[in-house]
Amino acid sequence: MEKKNNKSKDSSTILLTGLEEEVQLAPLTRKIRLQLTPPSLADNRSDLDRLSQALFPSFGRIQVPLPLMRKLPQVCREQNWEITALLGRTTQGWKLLELQAGDTTSRHYGLAVDIGTTTVVARLLDLQTGASLGTAADYNGQVSYGEDVLTRIFLTMESDGPGLLQEAIVKTLNGLIARLCAEAGITGEEIAAVVCGANTAMVHFLLGLDASRICREPYIPVLSNPGFLKAGDVGLQVLPQGLLYCLPSTGSYVGGDVVAGILVSGMHRREEVSLLVDIGTNGEIILGNWDWLVACAGAAGPALEGGVVAAGMRAEAGAIDRVRIQPDGRVTYHVIGEGKPAGICGSGLVDCLAELLLAGLIDRAGHLADGRDSFTLVPANESANGREIVITQNDINNFLRTKGAVNAAVEVLLESVGCGMGDITHFYAAGAFGRHLDLESAVTIGLYPDIPRERMIQLGNSSLEGARQVLLSEEKLQEVEEIASRITYFELNVNQSFMNKFVGSRFLPHTNLDYYPSVRARLAARGLIR
Amino acid sequence: MEKKNNKSKDSSTILLTGLEEEVQLAPLTRKIRLQLTPPSLADNRSDLDRLSQALFPSFGRIQVPLPLMRKLPQVCREQNWEITALLGRTTQGWKLLELQAGDTTSRHYGLAVDIGTTTVVARLLDLQTGASLGTAADYNGQVSYGEDVLTRIFLTMESDGPGLLQEAIVKTLNGLIARLCAEAGITGEEIAAVVCGANTAMVHFLLGLDASRICREPYIPVLSNPGFLKAGDVGLQVLPQGLLYCLPSTGSYVGGDVVAGILVSGMHRREEVSLLVDIGTNGEIILGNWDWLVACAGAAGPALEGGVVAAGMRAEAGAIDRVRIQPDGRVTYHVIGEGKPAGICGSGLVDCLAELLLAGLIDRAGHLADGRDSFTLVPANESANGREIVITQNDINNFLRTKGAVNAAVEVLLESVGCGMGDITHFYAAGAFGRHLDLESAVTIGLYPDIPRERMIQLGNSSLEGARQVLLSEEKLQEVEEIASRITYFELNVNQSFMNKFVGSRFLPHTNLDYYPSVRARLAARGLIR
Repeated sequence: MEKKNNKSKDSSTILLTGLEEEVQLAPLTRKIRLQLTPPSLADNRSDLDRLSQALFPSFGRIQVPLPLMRKLPQVCREQNWEITALLGRTTQGWKLLELQAGDTTSRHYGLAVDIGTTTVVARLLDLQTGASLGTAADYNGQVSYGEDVLTRIFLTMESDGPGLLQEAIVKTLNGLIARLCAEAGITGEEIAAVVCGANTAMVHFLLGLDASRICREPYIPVLSNPGFLKAGDVGLQVLPQGLLYCLPSTGSYVGGDVVAGILVSGMHRREEVSLLVDIGTNGEIILGNWDWLVACAGAAGPALEGGVVAAGMRAEAGAIDRVRIQPDGRVTYHVIGEGKPAGICGSGLVDCLAELLLAGLIDRAGHLADGRDSFTLVPANESANGREIVITQNDINNFLRTKGAVNAAVEVLLESVGCGMGDITHFYAAGAFGRHLDLESAVTIGLYPDIPRERMIQLGNSSLEGARQVLLSEEKLQEVEEIASRITYFELNVNQSFMNKFVGSRFLPHTNLDYYPSVRARLAARGLIR
Repeated sequence: MEKKNNKSKDSSTILLTGLEEEVQLAPLTRKIRLQLTPPSLADNRSDLDRLSQALFPSFGRIQVPLPLMRKLPQVCREQNWEITALLGRTTQGWKLLELQAGDTTSRHYGLAVDIGTTTVVARLLDLQTGASLGTAADYNGQVSYGEDVLTRIFLTMESDGPGLLQEAIVKTLNGLIARLCAEAGITGEEIAAVVCGANTAMVHFLLGLDASRICREPYIPVLSNPGFLKAGDVGLQVLPQGLLYCLPSTGSYVGGDVVAGILVSGMHRREEVSLLVDIGTNGEIILGNWDWLVACAGAAGPALEGGVVAAGMRAEAGAIDRVRIQPDGRVTYHVIGEGKPAGICGSGLVDCLAELLLAGLIDRAGHLADGRDSFTLVPANESANGREIVITQNDINNFLRTKGAVNAAVEVLLESVGCGMGDITHFYAAGAFGRHLDLESAVTIGLYPDIPRERMIQLGNSSLEGARQVLLSEEKLQEVEEIASRITYFELNVNQSFMNKFVGSRFLPHTNLDYYPSVRARLAARGLIR
């Protein structure tokens, strides 16, 4: 049973859930109850040999830290050689993390975390049963050092920068840990493992690494897979020797959050070709199947999140998130929080453009009809601040550049593997933007491909879900590492083919309507095309 | 070239050297210079992937601690991607211990240590060449908590006991480290690995473990093989993340020092049966070949070190260490330090008994001739304190009990593997006592077997030499772990066969003279037997 715990942030705007998959329970840490044979003259093995040999059949040669060696004789004899061993993965095998007298296997917890640029979501899991015990969300405390990720990356170039950013995110995480622990009636020390889904920059910030080269050619991160770290080494208030694992990334721009999206979609295990689009601060696009995975990324986010539109705003209370335009030009809309509108968010904008196209108020090149230079969405007297909310020709042009960049990127990827648009059989939308977007509108403007709707899947918070799966499942851990190592990344900044395609890609929905049969049918039905 | 550095302890009484073997250089830590390919858009691997992949062919998947991840980008770029990686073993593979810009491979050092109950010897080694750079010795600082090991073991039962003993030995070691580093012109941080040969109790004290069960039935140590620890975790002033490895033991009474003796002797690789005797505070006896190794141990030490004799003393200045008795009963002797005699040490006592037997002054059962109850070794006017130095019948009886225990133990071991005295082809004497003892006298009283003298080998400080070999050689590391796991230990305290043999074992040299042909010949030559 899932309990929502989301006091400091309105849950309507942070994605707490998504597609979930039942996994075969084999968590990142294991809690094993052992009834050891008490020593005798005939069996005078040392305490450590007795323990290691009991664990050997399941775990091989384990690593044992000195503090646990010191604790061992007392723990063994406290409950007549019944002890519980907590083990965690290393890159090379298993390590003893904790020892307790008696049987404490029922108390074994883990934390799955999604660290976004703006928001952080944490889910507490029972690692013995796989059950979710609660979810909590908050703003990323690093926001005080810069709303956007670039400002923070520049900060890590200063000597105290990495420390400040690390401290901020750890403080946010510790707040979530404290809330989740209090609700579940456990202590932080009972959390044995933390798995984190985040983009490459966020992982660098969490680990206190210099992220400055992520955004400078040739875009080299310090690491793409930190392996199994000690949670205490970054200051997380869980078991200090517990594991911290960050989902691996491919290069600077296909982060662990995106790799999680692939994992959750299952596209890497399917023979047919799938397309995954994750639009957040950056836009990441992955094309692939069980044989190959190709990816590219670009700063699509600001545009699609409303950032390039004069009236744009985040998907918060007051934002228009749904727009309908009747054939007679009459506009209806929905406002988050049900109050008066203050601006328009990304999903509202996509709706608006789709509706303008279907109403014949813009042409397929995005030009407003009759040479007008703006479209009034909300008259001044209906808005929150008494000013009109308008979409200008300039707004439309800016937005179409971003949409065109996504289309051009998809075509570059298709071309790189010798496929065409028609080969895409499944489509996955990851991230919060993908969740809130109206599917039909996204197809209408050509942001999403025009394939049967039952094969278009919104993954929801796949970064959190990927972290959850890896925390609970050895098989998913292997899968996620394999995905990260399999992805071939295309750097669009230096790609001439991308530039060429970009020029022709801003048409609505696409230069070639054959790829958009359902949109063609609707446009035709309204007499907008022959 | 070896430089002696032994200021705080008279070098004549601490064993600094012994049998040395050339080993194939493959040390416990490796320093590798890498010229990495600088990143480019075509090769945008992360810094960590670049490093890990360069090391992978030789070291497999390595563990990298977070502080080194933080340091990595700077170190890579400081000398244009020429870096030096220091790697150390784990139980499961290799771990990155340090990173430096440029080529620093020439500065890579290790320390081999012999920790005895009374004395500590440390040798500094160049791990790139295998050369010894210096040796230093000192008293074990734990002596202030008790001269004998039992007092110290009892101290570890008190809550602050393990900490006090650990602090004392670490202080001694740090003193030796400082002296060796100063002489060699290196810093402590350049010492990447420390290998320690010591008995089980000393290892427990060094690691701050509760040693109290070592001396109580069923004699269970906390551990017999601590694996690869961090030197900084016990406070050694070397590279904090450097390795600390203690030679593994078998049970409480066959310590890493004895396992080192086996390693240095090579008896575990020979088809023929060898006997190894290490007489220190405890006496340990090992019998074996390439197929099997059996061992037993007992508190023989005090007797053989002069502890059970009224005039007994340690092998220090003033101790008689050599005795000769002419057929006419005239006594000559040698005194350590060449001054007047103050008492007799173990090797002097063995000499004395052998000479008494050969002079016909005691019979084969150890009885003084003519019913006398003492033998005057030094008249009052020749001694340091103006008192006679005598060997009493009681002294002889006490000593023969110890000698008999050694003989009985050897016979128990022989019996356990279905061998007889005649099967022993090689004999090894380990430890300081073995080094100072007169071989012929030890054979005469039956403490050592009567085999061709070229196959009787004094190993010297084999604990130090074993540590040196393991520090320098991967092959020796594997051998020492294999030896410890192969030894079968016989607990004599509960062994009825031992008790039976003990009764008949105090004869000089043995009840069955067939095993002592050279002694029989000498006794016969003097007309003492038919």
